[in-house]
Amino acid sequence: MSTPLDRLTEQFRRLPGVGVKTARKLAYHMVQLPQDQVEEFVRSVEEAKQSMHFCSVCFNLSAQDPCEICSDSRRDHSLICVVETPQDVLAIERSGDYHGLYHVLQGALSPLDGIGVDDLRIKELLHRLQDTTVQEIIIATDPDVEGEATALYLARLLKTAGIKVTRIARGLPMGGDIEYADEATLAGAVANRQEM
Amino acid sequence: MSTPLDRLTEQFRRLPGVGVKTARKLAYHMVQLPQDQVEEFVRSVEEAKQSMHFCSVCFNLSAQDPCEICSDSRRDHSLICVVETPQDVLAIERSGDYHGLYHVLQGALSPLDGIGVDDLRIKELLHRLQDTTVQEIIIATDPDVEGEATALYLARLLKTAGIKVTRIARGLPMGGDIEYADEATLAGAVANRQEM
Repeated sequence: MSTPLDRLTEQFRRLPGVGVKTARKLAYHMVQLPQDQVEEFVRSVEEAKQSMHFCSVCFNLSAQDPCEICSDSRRDHSLICVVETPQDVLAIERSGDYHGLYHVLQGALSPLDGIGVDDLRIKELLHRLQDTTVQEIIIATDPDVEGEATALYLARLLKTAGIKVTRIARGLPMGGDIEYADEATLAGAVANRQEM
Repeated sequence: MSTPLDRLTEQFRRLPGVGVKTARKLAYHMVQLPQDQVEEFVRSVEEAKQSMHFCSVCFNLSAQDPCEICSDSRRDHSLICVVETPQDVLAIERSGDYHGLYHVLQGALSPLDGIGVDDLRIKELLHRLQDTTVQEIIIATDPDVEGEATALYLARLLKTAGIKVTRIARGLPMGGDIEYADEATLAGAVANRQEM
């Protein structure tokens, strides 16, 4: 027989990166919070779900449509940075150095998970290129198997459309240690060496 | 300016063991879930909060009062195991070997956090001892500074009430390694050695 607490634990367990022990800790914590704090939590979930939607241009999450970035005329509309998720947009924005637009694919090619070309926002990306202000596409999918496959696929597709395509650099992370870097990172860092 | 997504991130960050990166991941995940799954999550939180209360006898969390354990006549009502939190009850229940009752203190003595004797359910524990069926109190507070201080305080208090008081054993955990055990654990394991 499952109690309401077991069911809440199960709900937490479905969240990404939450194992059964963490889920239990969160569920027990939640029911021991004061009533008003639980209500505030629930309201935050409902409000965020209700107000955040995908931008119809770049498919980033936003409370407005088009999103703040797409509708910002001070940004460089000739550059589109292609990423996998809205979280990636946030990460690049936090780096503070990029002032172009984005395009969120909402995933990466992964035949094993049944995610193919039609499951990503690739058609919509091609549609955006009909606007001739776009000069360059920066592919910033993750440097893992799925991300690399997606980058390769996109690069071929976009080059036939006659547009400049670049890939974010692979190399050693800041604060990294050559001695402990994995082979693929080190090989990439040497191959992508820059003149000083 | 904070978006609804920032506010949801902040709500997740307040949960125990959730840092800012995890909170962001959870918030982004939540708003990208289908509407019905978000509703199911919210319903689980509300239902658990609404139906789970502290048992008026042992102060464990339960959907009924007295809780399943306190009202189970097949359990040994002469034994009370004193723990800090409802999670500790769950942990001991899962070990499957204990068939007595519990008493949840709802914390441990911690002068630095301003948690004193009156903040714990100690008065209520003494009240339970007026029932002469209780033969032994097993103190199962955590083996850390606060838990040990609480155990010591309770042991003195309960002995003056003329009741048998025991403390769960300290020793090496199953699957542990003597070579890597810390000094306090090892000292406790030697002091608590058992005849074979």
